[in-house]
Amino acid sequence: MVETARRKRGGGGAARRAARTSQKVVTAPVIQRRIADYEVLNEEALEIIERNAETVLEEIGVAFVENPAALKRWKEAGADVQGERVRLPRGMARELCAKAPSTFTQIARNPERSVEIGGRNLVLAPVYGPPFVRDAGGRRYATIEDFRTFVKLGHQSPWLHHSGGTVCEPTDIPVNRRHFDMLMAHMTLTDKPFMGAVTEPSRARDSIEMCDILFGGLEDRTALISLINVNSPLTFDSIMIGALEEYAAANQACIVSPFIVGGAMAPVSVVGTLTQVLAEVMAGVAYAQLIRPGAPVVFGAFVTSIDMNSGAPTFGTPEAAQITYGAGQLARRLGLPYRSAGSFCGSKLPDAQAAYETANSLNAGLLSGVNFMLHACGWLEGGLVADFEKFVMDADQLGILHRMAQGIDISEAGQAMDAIREVGPGGHYLGCAHTQAHYETAFWRTGLLDYKPYETWLEEGGRDTRALASVKMAAMLDSYEQPYLDPAILDGLRDYVARRTAEMPDAHI
Amino acid sequence: MVETARRKRGGGGAARRAARTSQKVVTAPVIQRRIADYEVLNEEALEIIERNAETVLEEIGVAFVENPAALKRWKEAGADVQGERVRLPRGMARELCAKAPSTFTQIARNPERSVEIGGRNLVLAPVYGPPFVRDAGGRRYATIEDFRTFVKLGHQSPWLHHSGGTVCEPTDIPVNRRHFDMLMAHMTLTDKPFMGAVTEPSRARDSIEMCDILFGGLEDRTALISLINVNSPLTFDSIMIGALEEYAAANQACIVSPFIVGGAMAPVSVVGTLTQVLAEVMAGVAYAQLIRPGAPVVFGAFVTSIDMNSGAPTFGTPEAAQITYGAGQLARRLGLPYRSAGSFCGSKLPDAQAAYETANSLNAGLLSGVNFMLHACGWLEGGLVADFEKFVMDADQLGILHRMAQGIDISEAGQAMDAIREVGPGGHYLGCAHTQAHYETAFWRTGLLDYKPYETWLEEGGRDTRALASVKMAAMLDSYEQPYLDPAILDGLRDYVARRTAEMPDAHI
Repeated sequence: MVETARRKRGGGGAARRAARTSQKVVTAPVIQRRIADYEVLNEEALEIIERNAETVLEEIGVAFVENPAALKRWKEAGADVQGERVRLPRGMARELCAKAPSTFTQIARNPERSVEIGGRNLVLAPVYGPPFVRDAGGRRYATIEDFRTFVKLGHQSPWLHHSGGTVCEPTDIPVNRRHFDMLMAHMTLTDKPFMGAVTEPSRARDSIEMCDILFGGLEDRTALISLINVNSPLTFDSIMIGALEEYAAANQACIVSPFIVGGAMAPVSVVGTLTQVLAEVMAGVAYAQLIRPGAPVVFGAFVTSIDMNSGAPTFGTPEAAQITYGAGQLARRLGLPYRSAGSFCGSKLPDAQAAYETANSLNAGLLSGVNFMLHACGWLEGGLVADFEKFVMDADQLGILHRMAQGIDISEAGQAMDAIREVGPGGHYLGCAHTQAHYETAFWRTGLLDYKPYETWLEEGGRDTRALASVKMAAMLDSYEQPYLDPAILDGLRDYVARRTAEMPDAHI
Repeated sequence: MVETARRKRGGGGAARRAARTSQKVVTAPVIQRRIADYEVLNEEALEIIERNAETVLEEIGVAFVENPAALKRWKEAGADVQGERVRLPRGMARELCAKAPSTFTQIARNPERSVEIGGRNLVLAPVYGPPFVRDAGGRRYATIEDFRTFVKLGHQSPWLHHSGGTVCEPTDIPVNRRHFDMLMAHMTLTDKPFMGAVTEPSRARDSIEMCDILFGGLEDRTALISLINVNSPLTFDSIMIGALEEYAAANQACIVSPFIVGGAMAPVSVVGTLTQVLAEVMAGVAYAQLIRPGAPVVFGAFVTSIDMNSGAPTFGTPEAAQITYGAGQLARRLGLPYRSAGSFCGSKLPDAQAAYETANSLNAGLLSGVNFMLHACGWLEGGLVADFEKFVMDADQLGILHRMAQGIDISEAGQAMDAIREVGPGGHYLGCAHTQAHYETAFWRTGLLDYKPYETWLEEGGRDTRALASVKMAAMLDSYEQPYLDPAILDGLRDYVARRTAEMPDAHI
């Protein structure tokens, strides 16, 4: 299941480079589902939601705020534009969405780590956005050093295919320069694919320019995927959409993702929420296709419920799972790759609550047909915290998704009739020929969890999962080796950052 | 969703009894699934497994150990009996299985708590069998007082429909009398349905006799469900089968349940394991139908993988989930109620590992169509430990299964178009009419987990899930009220136990 990344060997410089870049890190290929998706909505429900979403776009419309160029584009495309409100005739958004590819490749600088997003694939990326980090020592504001540590952990994780984006907010770096440090970390500390900046259109341009350097000329290849949140309900702000405009124009991928705490940004019902999600995604994706027909996009759905007592978002809930399954069905009918689910939890600690909530979401994510799972590990406290221990714990669980997705071997070896004959009633299988031949690959193996005898476990300190994760994290960082990067490319990146930074006014945190 | 148990009011004694038995405990009705089952096996795989299981029964056969009467019954029914080995002609077992009901009612002494097992229902029962208990103070041997505490907690749990059986082993009571104390606890401390003893045929008879007293004459009604483990591979021992014989003859329900640690008691492959499970269940169920055609039975599957390093069973694994889904499909094709999944985990503590593993299994259990989920809460350390905190934590998660199973409301209220119109782009839903009308029932609510603001949480001690569960457990026991039982019935039960105990030789633990 896990294959060692291999490099082609050539003569001269290529051979030397190959030797230097040969890696110990073993990363699993992208998950290719050989199992069915779970469907929670029947045809009637799907049709109701699709019809209602068209009604929302036609009657209520969406707002494109402080973005005259967008309003102009919409008008030219045939939408009804009144002020900042854009109303789309029935069918118009769906027709535009049909121009988007159902699957696309995001390249990585290690070509074996390029990922295909869409179809039956599932790509796993780490947590995104927390201003805080937590480790055994407690919670604190995140720094660029924390960021780099997460990128290294992601590089070392066999089940993560993607380095993600804002794994945590490096709050010690001025906001207008933060994206440079984050991009440099993703570009130099790992060779997995990564995400672009969205906090300013100019930062999206920087992301693209730096990729152009990293990849020696992008030439329309997709090297970035970026998270464009919809300001739900039904609002697209000029910053996020400005970034989308940059990315779409350059054929870089955008996840159009309603950001919904149910009860606040959407109705307190599953069908109502799905209707709004569909309307928002269709409007955002359609707009990306107005910018550049065929621009790669992803149907995103970040949906939680609200705790009506505290007003806090809740995670791992049945409503979130139902929406995750339902949105997957809607995305497939729209022919778009799907992003949802993750290591979501509301807990303040990487404890049982965190794990129940996370497992509930990961399981729904796998069976709902998610193609790109952002936040697949490390999320804590409603996304306020990127937790080092939980990152390691969740990442271990991601191995389960890989195995589940393989489906079931019905070959003669899988049928194991010889083994049943050999062992017979009352025997045991430990020593039989079939077991000897297959035990090494028969079962998923944790790289973290404890199955030792009670006495051994007690002697070793009676450690809980957090303590085990802390030890594992140290081992992962200890064995980390930076992947080779051509010094000329590194210089090019540094020059670009130096030049752009020099253009900026002094900034304070 | 949760309905307060109501009692019909009548005049005189009935009214007084009603007043005394009116309860504060609110228990949810049995889960009625309005969602689809997840299918991991396609038709080809199902047919291979069914064909191979018939081959196992025909060529290899099953052993009925130290049970001449069973061998005689099989011979008379047309099986090929050689020594203790019973080989069944193709189709014979399936034909006998067809005599079993696809659904049956297990009565409770509170008729509103009777449960229908089979069809689209899911009945939840607590952990079964651990010799140890654990609470905040650590791990220790279980006592009858621990047992009673668990029965009270189960009585108080809104999401548990069933009081279970050997919730923990009361190791302070002699083995030959233990079943009396356990049955008395289930009969007197709760009015939910419960399980019978299986450690001796005579103890099964005691269980039935005591139910006859409790219910004022059973008259063929099913008041007990009991766990008959198959001694996998392919072996039925005389004690378990002796208990099954007693129960089936009295129309009491038996779960015929292969007990499999994959790699030890079954092949290291999913299809091989499912083949053996199917053969074993078919043989056991067929035998129950030889005892009494139409006797209620359940297709059981307890399946874990083995950690090939330590030899320990593992839980929450992808292979276990695949088998859980697959066995559900096989059970439905056989027309039998299905038992599998639970709060399984290998962890020594109710920590993140325990919760990941448990959630993985609970999710698979819901979507695989399980009808009776034993071990639905409280399991720890591979089943060696019944954990008080985890019992409370898991029981809270069971609420999620109830909600998920409800499916999705596509009514006008569910569509919420009025709300989307009312709020419009950029608004929020907190105060809108639809939210006001539905927020109380819109989302599943935890009775345990923490969603407080960080500062509040910190001020209150920064508690993890275990600490919260400990507090909740105390509150549940504090508000516990014993349900009314007619003193004449209680006397009858006590007399029976005294008489039977007097017949026994002195016993030591």
